[in-house]
Order: sequence, then structure tokens, then C-alpha cells
Amino acid sequence: MLENTNTTPLSEYGEFGLIDLLTKNIKIKNKSTVLGIGDDAAIINSNNRYQLVSKDLLIEGVHFDLSYCPLKHIGYKAIASNLSDIAAMNATPEQILVGIAVSSRYTAEAIEEVYQGMRLCCERYGVDLVGGDTTSSVSGMCISITVLGYADSSKIVKRSTANENDLICVSGDLGAAYMGLIILEREKQVFLENQRNQPDLEGFDYLLERQLKPEPRLDIIKHLDEKNILPTSMIDISDGLASDILHICQQSKKGCTIYEEKLPIDSLTYDTAMDFQLIPSTIALNGGEDYELLFTIKQSDYEKILQLKDISIIGHITGENTGNYLITNDKKSIPLQAQGWDAYRKKNKI
Amino acid sequence: MLENTNTTPLSEYGEFGLIDLLTKNIKIKNKSTVLGIGDDAAIINSNNRYQLVSKDLLIEGVHFDLSYCPLKHIGYKAIASNLSDIAAMNATPEQILVGIAVSSRYTAEAIEEVYQGMRLCCERYGVDLVGGDTTSSVSGMCISITVLGYADSSKIVKRSTANENDLICVSGDLGAAYMGLIILEREKQVFLENQRNQPDLEGFDYLLERQLKPEPRLDIIKHLDEKNILPTSMIDISDGLASDILHICQQSKKGCTIYEEKLPIDSLTYDTAMDFQLIPSTIALNGGEDYELLFTIKQSDYEKILQLKDISIIGHITGENTGNYLITNDKKSIPLQAQGWDAYRKKNKI
Repeated sequence: MLENTNTTPLSEYGEFGLIDLLTKNIKIKNKSTVLGIGDDAAIINSNNRYQLVSKDLLIEGVHFDLSYCPLKHIGYKAIASNLSDIAAMNATPEQILVGIAVSSRYTAEAIEEVYQGMRLCCERYGVDLVGGDTTSSVSGMCISITVLGYADSSKIVKRSTANENDLICVSGDLGAAYMGLIILEREKQVFLENQRNQPDLEGFDYLLERQLKPEPRLDIIKHLDEKNILPTSMIDISDGLASDILHICQQSKKGCTIYEEKLPIDSLTYDTAMDFQLIPSTIALNGGEDYELLFTIKQSDYEKILQLKDISIIGHITGENTGNYLITNDKKSIPLQAQGWDAYRKKNKI
Repeated sequence: MLENTNTTPLSEYGEFGLIDLLTKNIKIKNKSTVLGIGDDAAIINSNNRYQLVSKDLLIEGVHFDLSYCPLKHIGYKAIASNLSDIAAMNATPEQILVGIAVSSRYTAEAIEEVYQGMRLCCERYGVDLVGGDTTSSVSGMCISITVLGYADSSKIVKRSTANENDLICVSGDLGAAYMGLIILEREKQVFLENQRNQPDLEGFDYLLERQLKPEPRLDIIKHLDEKNILPTSMIDISDGLASDILHICQQSKKGCTIYEEKLPIDSLTYDTAMDFQLIPSTIALNGGEDYELLFTIKQSDYEKILQLKDISIIGHITGENTGNYLITNDKKSIPLQAQGWDAYRKKNKI
């Protein structure tokens, strides 16, 4: 049944192409369904309070590597990345449901460690763990998370509503999580070559923390609300800035211009990238897993946004069919391309 | 990290023991969380409209076997079994979110077939597919489903609210899905021994349909409502009648008496079980995957329930600490034991 004559390898589609194929004929029937597939979360109208629902499937060997990622961190990150999806809709997460499948080589204590990390993240962000499903797998670990969040219907921010001349903003700094991964992979190789070698992770704390224990930027959502700034569009950076700004532009039917010199890059990310002979801005654009918020605001909110810490204005939205460009430090204009992580293509971020 | 000194194999816990271990310290913080882990679905209060959320993780080789289960049926059953969880709370399902992870041996067409089955089930029951996540896996297929349903808060029926002297009812008939599985496994063995053998499935249509394409009993929910019968407790039969009535009794802190002669068994299930030298009532008690509704009603609803088709009264609820018993056809009273399918123990249902 898997060997049809007219078959298409998954790699020809990529994740987003495949989702389009599978969901193109779906029609919405229930009044309570406000928004279906295509944003960070679906929107459900429950008595005029809007509910956001998002889910994720994390697979050992694809999304995490147990040889260098502690179980507790896997649990924490699984929750954090889902809370980030709710933050990206300008909403507050309140409930989480967790499914875990593991093979018999795992012990109860190992799963308890994953749950410890999950509970820690839930507690930090005031989220209730309301559903659990544990089952066995043939090999490896598989984690499935569903998160529920809430917002007033007037406050929800989608990907598809950016306007021409809006300013493009990003929270925090970019590329650190990816450099953390590079460090961990290097040490894994060193360890595989000689198992008596101890990992040399000293001095890379910030990068490792960004990779192993990302935090959803619910603080930014709060600060924007306090300043009365409602973003015109928003997404969280999971695939990489370049890939994610293209989602906003495609869904808003607009173009964009991003300035290389404006990209927020931590000095440790910069120096480490240089040591690995990687271009820091390429890492910032395509690294992914930053879980920072990427959003657009009206020009009239410019003065207000300057009062907020930890936010960089990196470019602006342009008109329909104008294309998406990066203005490099030497003033060249080059097309922005999504080179983000794509689960069905070869892992080749940079 | 997987080899701690004080480790416990998962098989020592079983699925329910493990869930208890992992979730015992969880405290509910949000007002919107009405009911957390422990029933067919979590309950969320969204502006006084109650929402039900349930999720499931289905793993190839554990929950389904591609060698005899067509991809379209896998999709249909994955949705149907989740809609059944919402029916078991006396609520109406409205939204579904789907995650699928597959290895590169799958084609886009194969996943499209799974989705076809999912869309078919969603359409039949008026449910919107609002979220999709597709990713890669190292081996095999993994399906994760989240379902959202709704009910007035006064209509929701939990597992924990059965009362002494309530009548125990079950919809449809039991054991057919399990006999369907036995037939499929026999034909798989025949095929493995000689690949030129064609499967002999003739005459087993009903059993195969019950195994491959179960239907959630949303019709029963509707009929109960029309007759103004509000069950006092309810669960859907996924693990097997014996296991599932024990969930109701444990959570309601009651006992029960079930009569073997009252168990609804289809004649084809009965005859096929006898041909395989299996005891039909054992199959009905422990087979599982029937996705029928098991519920309790007040004695005062007895006359009303008799007016409904396709419902059998199979016993009654007894007082606290009275134990759970099966009265056999030869009038012996034997303790009811859960021998249902347990993902962490050896697969040995009967």
C-alpha cells in the first residue's frame, strides 16, 4: 500500500507544501471555529471569549537528541515552545495536555524527569497540566503537546494582517540557540571519537541555555499591552527569522525590507560564529529555535516602542509584489530566502 | 542518563500507574480549569460554556499495524476514537487538531490517504479540522489527535459520579472489534507463511468493520438527550468493559454487579469466538476497542431507557467497599478483573 505507481517523495513537498496538500479541501462548518489551519494557533470562539489552540509533535532523533539534551530540558523546551505559539497570537496560555510514547528501554524515572521539566515550565508560566496520555512506542520517544490560551477577540494578532509601511520588530537576540546546538554537536563528535574526553562547554552558558532551555516571551506580550501597543501581525521565531518573516509577508500579501545591521546578535553568538567560520548574520537569519517574537507595528507606535527594552526595529513592510529583501551592511539588496529548518528536507540550515 | 541505579521498568507501573506517578503533584491554578487529568477529557470553563479537551497518541506497531490496516481506516479510526472520548462526557465534538510524524519511506500520497480517512470521519460528524502539524520521524508513523467538544455545564457527565443502585447500561454490542483483530492477525500469519495465500475475510464483514472503522456513539448521546435522560456517570469502552466499569467504580468510590447473561454479544462475534475456542463473554468483557458507551442511570429512568433501541442494562452499582462482581450464567459470583489492553504490559488480552 506504500508503493503506489504515482508517488511523490515527501522531500519534494517540504513541511508547508505537504500541509497545503492535506488541508486544501477542508471547509469550516462550526460557528465556534474562527480560524483553522495556517497560523501559530487555531482560534475558537467560546461565548465570545477567544480561545487559541496549538499542538506540536516532537520526535527523538528529529527534534531532540538524547545524547546531549537532558530529559528535564526536553520536557521544559517542549512546553516552552508551545507557550511561545500562544504568545505569538498575543494571548495567554492557561492549559497544557501532554502525550508521551516511549519504548521499553526507558524507565519510569526517565519519564518522570521529562515531566519534571514540563511541570517546572508550567509552574513558571502559570499553566495547568490538564491531560496526560502515556503509551509505548516501538523505538525512541515521541512527545505530543497541546496548549490552550485565551485573549479578548479584539486583542488577537494573526500573521496575515501586516500593512504597508509597518515597522518590523523582533524581541531579544537571534542565532544563540543555533550556536548552542553547534557547540553541543561538536562536543558529541569529540565524545564519539574518544569516550574519555570530557565535554568542553565552559564559557558557552548563554548559548547552551538558549538551545536547551528557551523561554516563551510572554513578558513581551505583557509589556506591549502595558504600553497599549497592539502589533499588526506576529509570529514566533521557530524556523528562523528569514523563514518566519516570509510567513508574515506571504499571508499578509506584502513585501518586506530587513537591514542586516539592525539584526540583534549577542556578542557571544557573534564571536562563536566567527570562531566556527560562520557568518553571524546568516546564523541570526536562519538559525531558528530562538522563540523570540517577530511582529509588525504601525509607524504611529514608533515612539512608544522605543520605550520598551529588548526590542529591535529591523525593517519595514513594503507593498504587494515588491518582494522580500535584505539590505546588507555594504548596502546591497539581496532577496530574502527561507533556509530555516524543514523537517522533510536535508538538515542544512546554513 | 537512562541508566539510573534506582530504576523501575515501565511494565511495573502499567499505563494508569504511570499517569498517577507523573501527575500526582500537579495543582490547578487557573480559574478556567474545571477538571484536569483523570476522565475521558479535561473540562475548561470558557465564559460558562464548558469545553472538553482530549488527546491521544497513536503509534505504528503499537496501536495499529499497517500490514492489515489500510491507511484510510487508520485516519478514520484515529478521529473516531477521539470523538468517542467527547461523547463519553455527554458533549458534542466540534474541532480536531492532527499531528502526524512519518519516516521518509512514506510518500505524500500515503499521508494523503490517512488524511482522507480523517476528513471523512470529520465530515460525517460535523467536526472541523483546525490544526495540522506534519513532521518526520526516525521510523514508522505516529499520529497525535486533539479533540475539542462542548456542552452546557449542567449536561457534562463524568466518571466519578455514579450512585448506589444506579443501573449500568451499555450501547451496541461488545467484543466484535476484538474478534475482527483476531481474524486479521490470523490472515496476517497465513500471509507471512506463504505470500501467495489470499486473505480469507469473507463473512467477517461486521467484525472487520468494528475493528477497522469504529463509530463514536454520538447518536446515543442525542437519543438520551431527547428522552431527557442524563446519565449519572459515563465512559467509552476503549480498554474493555471490565476495565472501564472499574474506572467508573474506582472514581465514584462504589462497587458493581454485572450479569454475564446480560452482556450484549452479536451472533457473529459469538460464533467466531467459539470457532477460535474463546469464551464469548470473556471477549465481550475484555476485548476492548468497542467504542460503545458505558453509563449509569438512576433507577427512576428505567422506563425511559427501555424505549431506546440498542441499549442493554447489564447490572447495577453497589455501595462503597462492596467489591466488583460478575454473576456468571451458572449464578456464581466472581470478582471482576481488568484484563484490558495495557500498552506497557505484555499484550495478552484474554
